[in-house]
Amino acid sequence: MLSKNKLKLIQSLNHKKGREKENCFLAEGDKIVTEALKSNFHVDSLLSTSEFINSHSLLCKKTCKPIEVTKKEIQSASLLQSPQNALAIIHIPEESFSVSALNNQFSLALDSVQDPGNLGTIIRIADWFGISHIICSTDTTDCFSPKVIQASMGAIFRVKIHYFDLESILEEIKKLKISVFGTFLEGENIFTSSLPSSGILVMGNEGNGISKGISHYIDKKLTIPSFGNSGTESLNVAIATAICCSEFKRRIIVKSTPKNQINKYNIM
Amino acid sequence: MLSKNKLKLIQSLNHKKGREKENCFLAEGDKIVTEALKSNFHVDSLLSTSEFINSHSLLCKKTCKPIEVTKKEIQSASLLQSPQNALAIIHIPEESFSVSALNNQFSLALDSVQDPGNLGTIIRIADWFGISHIICSTDTTDCFSPKVIQASMGAIFRVKIHYFDLESILEEIKKLKISVFGTFLEGENIFTSSLPSSGILVMGNEGNGISKGISHYIDKKLTIPSFGNSGTESLNVAIATAICCSEFKRRIIVKSTPKNQINKYNIM
Repeated sequence: MLSKNKLKLIQSLNHKKGREKENCFLAEGDKIVTEALKSNFHVDSLLSTSEFINSHSLLCKKTCKPIEVTKKEIQSASLLQSPQNALAIIHIPEESFSVSALNNQFSLALDSVQDPGNLGTIIRIADWFGISHIICSTDTTDCFSPKVIQASMGAIFRVKIHYFDLESILEEIKKLKISVFGTFLEGENIFTSSLPSSGILVMGNEGNGISKGISHYIDKKLTIPSFGNSGTESLNVAIATAICCSEFKRRIIVKSTPKNQINKYNIM
Repeated sequence: MLSKNKLKLIQSLNHKKGREKENCFLAEGDKIVTEALKSNFHVDSLLSTSEFINSHSLLCKKTCKPIEVTKKEIQSASLLQSPQNALAIIHIPEESFSVSALNNQFSLALDSVQDPGNLGTIIRIADWFGISHIICSTDTTDCFSPKVIQASMGAIFRVKIHYFDLESILEEIKKLKISVFGTFLEGENIFTSSLPSSGILVMGNEGNGISKGISHYIDKKLTIPSFGNSGTESLNVAIATAICCSEFKRRIIVKSTPKNQINKYNIM
């Protein structure tokens, strides 16, 4: 049964203040809760229907004892339009982070990304492309808000997200001689530019792009070229992130593919 | 002043039935309305604050006489969380379309894309990459719904969207010897695969990908490879569209760039 206290707790986790107070966040929906149970995150409570418990019995045993609730009870607590069979309260992990973890890696940094859907999508993209770390400026939207968790589709449990004063951390990153890239409307064409297989790529705010303070730290400004007479002035930040990550990672694939196996269209 | 009848009309345009009855759709927000006024679309009514009329006087003169309203009146009619200074009722264009328009072009086809945000984002991506035509299956979400218009950021006024029975139109497309590509979880690595500079790329439904019936028409199945031990099973359809369009278009740039200007990392 869903107690009144639990319901209150769940509702408080919709807000950053509540999450900070409880040091917990919410994962909703069968797929995302399953990913949470599979991960190293500490599950505080799992509320699920008997249906979910039966079909995920091994996973449920691994964690805390699930609280069996009805679909109606989940609905009363859920933020989702079509609530499913499971909802979990999860501890926000305490992570120690040293900049040296970014050595010989390709990582992302976000300068004030505001939209939770964008942040969640960027986390999902990072996971797809094997990117382990995302550094967020302190004013980037909270990665543990329900909308981010939903959009990340479970990738939040694999990609490590760190919040820092971006200028200070870029200062440290540059001391380690890690190359810093950033996307701008006026930059070098990413498709014909030299790109190493490691470094950190900064993506900017939805409306304003990369801030002036941060742009000083960029070693190479990159642009995704537009085609034809496009009237579209910019791409959505998650879309631009996807294209850039794809291009950085493509180079790695192409470099590791024997030349005779690469089609001439690719290398021309 | 915003009359009761106009308000009723505007509200009816939030629903497909209303749009079909009135043969009109809604454009909201300063940026999108400006794009509408610049386009060849026929503006039925423009409701805007005196501020918008003054700062866009030439554009406003070009179209119908704007109806001056207060910000509060716009708010009462608007679907946006933070309504702006303009709102336009626009005629749905009557377009004749012949499949031969797809000759020597790179185009997109959507097989039952359901989310309006995804469709709008795909239209914006198409505009960025100079793609003129998107063919949608009849069960793809309506491109004139307010959420699609918002997400397209004005690209809806430039990219041509056509709704057809996808199997029948692919039949015709194949008769013209236009290559048909599609993205699948199991396909050829798009980064090392041979890609021509023209053809049509089919993108599938958010949950189920490309349907069985449509997959018969695909000449080459493509995959965006994942990296590392990614637990993410798939990419969002708009993200996948962006990466694929980027890769098709990248080849064109690289082919047209003199060899000595392409960095060795790019051609390796």
